[in-house]
Amino acid sequence: MGAVTSPKQDRSRATRQRLLESAVACLAVHGWAGSTVSVVAEHAGVSRGAAQHHFPTREDLFTGAVEYVAEERSAALRALPVQGRAEVVAALVDLYTGPLFRAALQLWVAASNEEQLRPRVTELEARVGRETHRIAVNLLGADETRPGVRETVQGLLDMARGLGLANLLTDDGARRRRVVTQWAVLLDEALG
Amino acid sequence: MGAVTSPKQDRSRATRQRLLESAVACLAVHGWAGSTVSVVAEHAGVSRGAAQHHFPTREDLFTGAVEYVAEERSAALRALPVQGRAEVVAALVDLYTGPLFRAALQLWVAASNEEQLRPRVTELEARVGRETHRIAVNLLGADETRPGVRETVQGLLDMARGLGLANLLTDDGARRRRVVTQWAVLLDEALG
Repeated sequence: MGAVTSPKQDRSRATRQRLLESAVACLAVHGWAGSTVSVVAEHAGVSRGAAQHHFPTREDLFTGAVEYVAEERSAALRALPVQGRAEVVAALVDLYTGPLFRAALQLWVAASNEEQLRPRVTELEARVGRETHRIAVNLLGADETRPGVRETVQGLLDMARGLGLANLLTDDGARRRRVVTQWAVLLDEALG
Repeated sequence: MGAVTSPKQDRSRATRQRLLESAVACLAVHGWAGSTVSVVAEHAGVSRGAAQHHFPTREDLFTGAVEYVAEERSAALRALPVQGRAEVVAALVDLYTGPLFRAALQLWVAASNEEQLRPRVTELEARVGRETHRIAVNLLGADETRPGVRETVQGLLDMARGLGLANLLTDDGARRRRVVTQWAVLLDEALG
């Protein structure tokens, strides 16, 4: 039997969700330095006290937000329909150019300077990296028992991350599409 | 005849150079939020007044630092000896994993949130991107008149950037070497 929730629990869950989405939005727009709990609470239309009830510290809130980002991205990946490799490559790269990637990037960079954030973000990134790799192997129909296939898929995901970074300051979409088209061909040949 | 400089000019140039190197070091360690002109001046062993004589505003100092980073990276690239493609790929990727890349990354992310920094960093990044591509084509002996070759080299540089990002929080060296070895093979086949 599924869990039965009260209206109060539903409201609490909705508030939590709104805070996480606001944390991601604030990170993407204002960066770590500009994203205090107060800024996020105001964006979410929630009192500072209510925000602190859900997330006692700033680190709790933003670690929760990274986790949320990670789950959203994995869900988006798993929801991709089975299709040709060129479409899969394009969809994988698309994951790294939206607001979720921008927020994750802000957190990675902040974590590189903030000791309190670093271990949590590092652990989460490793977990997300493994999960993304697993889903990509599956979508691409890649046979990892063949030598070099594992590294080929990893390199593709590194390229996708680099393309996301190139898109940070300007809209790099036209160039990106040409690069993705070409590398989808090379990848298809490499995966056999 | 080369320019003749006075001892005073030499000292001024040395101070400027020290400020730029300190700005890069501070960015890599403290990020944009923690890198004020005072912090950089103290790191360089220079008075705040002397720092402001060279760089009137914080934006001037850090734009100068980005330019300095860019010139250092181009010089390092051009200084690579002519060698096999696998070595060139490894050397290109190495450029994206050191303190120069970490500093540039901090600036890109700060520029995405700081309107005063953004146009300068965007312009500089476009210039550096073109220059890096030109040097990479040359080192790889790639024939850009052939269809797809331009995009193949661009994708390689995007992968290098993504590998640099993956190295931000943890030492990703062992995995990176395996990915680079495999992608050097794919690249070599693609370039013919």
